[in-house]
Amino acid sequence: MFKLTPKEQLQEIKKGAVDIVSERELLSKLEKSYKEKRPLRVKAGFDPSRPDIHIGHTVVINKLATFQKLGHQVIFLIGDFTAMIGDPTGKNETRPALSREEVKENAKTYASQVFKVLDEGKTEIDYNSRWMDEFSAVDFVKLASQYTVARMLERDDFQKRFSNQDSICVHEFLYPLVQAYDSVALKADVELGGTDQRFNLLLGRDIQKAYGMEPQCILTMPILEGLDGVKKMSKSLDNYIGVDDIPKEMFGKTMKVSDELMLRYYELLSDLSVCEIEKIKKGISDGSLHPRQVKVDLAKFLITRFHSKNAADQAAEEFDRIFVNKGLPDEIPERVVAADAGKPICPFMTELGLTNSNGEARRLVQGNAVDINGEKFKDPQGKIELKSGESFVVKAGKKKFVKVIVK
Amino acid sequence: MFKLTPKEQLQEIKKGAVDIVSERELLSKLEKSYKEKRPLRVKAGFDPSRPDIHIGHTVVINKLATFQKLGHQVIFLIGDFTAMIGDPTGKNETRPALSREEVKENAKTYASQVFKVLDEGKTEIDYNSRWMDEFSAVDFVKLASQYTVARMLERDDFQKRFSNQDSICVHEFLYPLVQAYDSVALKADVELGGTDQRFNLLLGRDIQKAYGMEPQCILTMPILEGLDGVKKMSKSLDNYIGVDDIPKEMFGKTMKVSDELMLRYYELLSDLSVCEIEKIKKGISDGSLHPRQVKVDLAKFLITRFHSKNAADQAAEEFDRIFVNKGLPDEIPERVVAADAGKPICPFMTELGLTNSNGEARRLVQGNAVDINGEKFKDPQGKIELKSGESFVVKAGKKKFVKVIVK
Repeated sequence: MFKLTPKEQLQEIKKGAVDIVSERELLSKLEKSYKEKRPLRVKAGFDPSRPDIHIGHTVVINKLATFQKLGHQVIFLIGDFTAMIGDPTGKNETRPALSREEVKENAKTYASQVFKVLDEGKTEIDYNSRWMDEFSAVDFVKLASQYTVARMLERDDFQKRFSNQDSICVHEFLYPLVQAYDSVALKADVELGGTDQRFNLLLGRDIQKAYGMEPQCILTMPILEGLDGVKKMSKSLDNYIGVDDIPKEMFGKTMKVSDELMLRYYELLSDLSVCEIEKIKKGISDGSLHPRQVKVDLAKFLITRFHSKNAADQAAEEFDRIFVNKGLPDEIPERVVAADAGKPICPFMTELGLTNSNGEARRLVQGNAVDINGEKFKDPQGKIELKSGESFVVKAGKKKFVKVIVK
Repeated sequence: MFKLTPKEQLQEIKKGAVDIVSERELLSKLEKSYKEKRPLRVKAGFDPSRPDIHIGHTVVINKLATFQKLGHQVIFLIGDFTAMIGDPTGKNETRPALSREEVKENAKTYASQVFKVLDEGKTEIDYNSRWMDEFSAVDFVKLASQYTVARMLERDDFQKRFSNQDSICVHEFLYPLVQAYDSVALKADVELGGTDQRFNLLLGRDIQKAYGMEPQCILTMPILEGLDGVKKMSKSLDNYIGVDDIPKEMFGKTMKVSDELMLRYYELLSDLSVCEIEKIKKGISDGSLHPRQVKVDLAKFLITRFHSKNAADQAAEEFDRIFVNKGLPDEIPERVVAADAGKPICPFMTELGLTNSNGEARRLVQGNAVDINGEKFKDPQGKIELKSGESFVVKAGKKKFVKVIVK
């Protein structure tokens, strides 16, 4: 049933993990599972209130995939109970209460993205409303009695807010308890999450013990830095690569990251072994590998994972055509413009700052010196359609480039 | 419908109260109720886990009776929801979870005691399990979201425990919220409680507001001191007069309290007006009233309230016969002895320390100098039956007394 021995499994599981509580316990669970031919139940929870995920989220999903490949039972838990409550204080308008239908819809979108990494047929999807809907007031009191206020306030964010006298509402103490109880309901052997989930995952251990179960092992994964290389990847910071980004965009965003961040992405997102990543690092430092090519490979890996091999090849070709073969620099100034059904080329070039006058623009076009996305633009009376959401590069002469982004 | 004007009602209501939040609001509620001929809904909650109440509990019940006499609707709320949970941590063995049947049984006992003060026909009895049983996990989260952790920690006992690092379990934050929600479910206009309930009663105001209701007024009553005059009256301190104590015991316990405490009991337990109590105080200080007689009146008042006028008269007569007419001192040494079907009188007197030898005892009996509860005991060979639970006074000669308590 399991191809790898417990110790070999542990090696795979440890790759990239920040923290395991505890390695000894996890090994003993793996050994027992191996002996009894019983897959471990490996849980990770997801918030369905924001269904579109970025590659930062896939760090944990990749680790789930590792467990799945090792032969364990992966449980993809949709935390719909809290999502359906929304922000009960009504203060946070960005957290509206979702209906059961909206949750299902979001979960479906979520799943379609997640199953680009996980094997759908082998994944258990569950919703915590399944047991929380049956939870009585008495059950809730009993659950809450298993933990103290003081220990709850040890959680990093609670601690900060409490000492800053920022208000914490009582129900916020209940959410981690619900998440912990999910592990009881699911009989989880292991729970995964980002490092920011450490407290909640550990609470799961305590609550399982309180309900007479063997506590789960927990494994935390790093939080992926965004494209800026500094802040956590997040939609609101606009420093993310979405799992649903079109291949061209995915390629472009990946090519923009620093070489250092590129290596970090290799570690957390690719399925290369630690050893293979070391080889890449060495290649870059001794000059046998060009960082740009390594970045292209990463971009192609991501597109292959979230779209297809074909899409990855196409995106790479297009990128080469526009940027590499035509000698485009890595950094091109960007200009955001309004959509237009037919923009005359000459005044447009002047507007973009590529030429000083419409006359200069006309002469360049007539002289075959204007490219749009690598294609010659030859008609000085011609018009360009500016479609909302599109972008393209205009090249004027040998050295002037502008990337046009249509609002 | 109402005999008194709102302002007159307020005067009656204020008597003995420690705190009203707020008097202005209460007057406006009374005025509205008067105008609309709608009785106010006046709530007080009771814990059914300890059904036998002492006169300390009746301070609040007396105030309920005041509202009832004024024409308002009194709601006697049995907090069975928490009683049925017991101590969910399982640490406190004195708080076992009660079954629904046990709660009903205790509530019945409770009610039979309470209806010595309240008019049963005009009292609404309710159980908070009626709505809490229907309360979903979502309802609970929404309720908990209405209050902050910081404000919860402002409650006296929580504050002390938190700063002493004594653990507070999270569910302890839920109980006051449930009590507060009871006021929502009952649409309470006023809630009464002891001063130790102040936080919880105020929380009821906040929660009612959060649920879109006009907040209740709250009224706190003093906590009655026990027979020692210092500590809170409580069963565990054995400084209490039980509502179910037999008349003789009630009489004896009342006669033992200090003169000062006696006046306090008048204030909090009798239905005398402030003016009448002032008169008593004056009478004592100018010597026109004997404190002992004032105490006898108090004892008779209590026995009349909790038993009958007849029982009160009998108890007073018996007390006179034994203690006053026979010149018994107020303080008599007590001796606890084992039950015995027939204890010979002479060795018994020596055993009690009333005589130095059986010979001395015999001479006293023969000389008609021995009384038991005021009756001569004349047979030196006679035996006394010591029945478990009984007590009596043995007098030997003119100055020696012992109160015998049979285990």
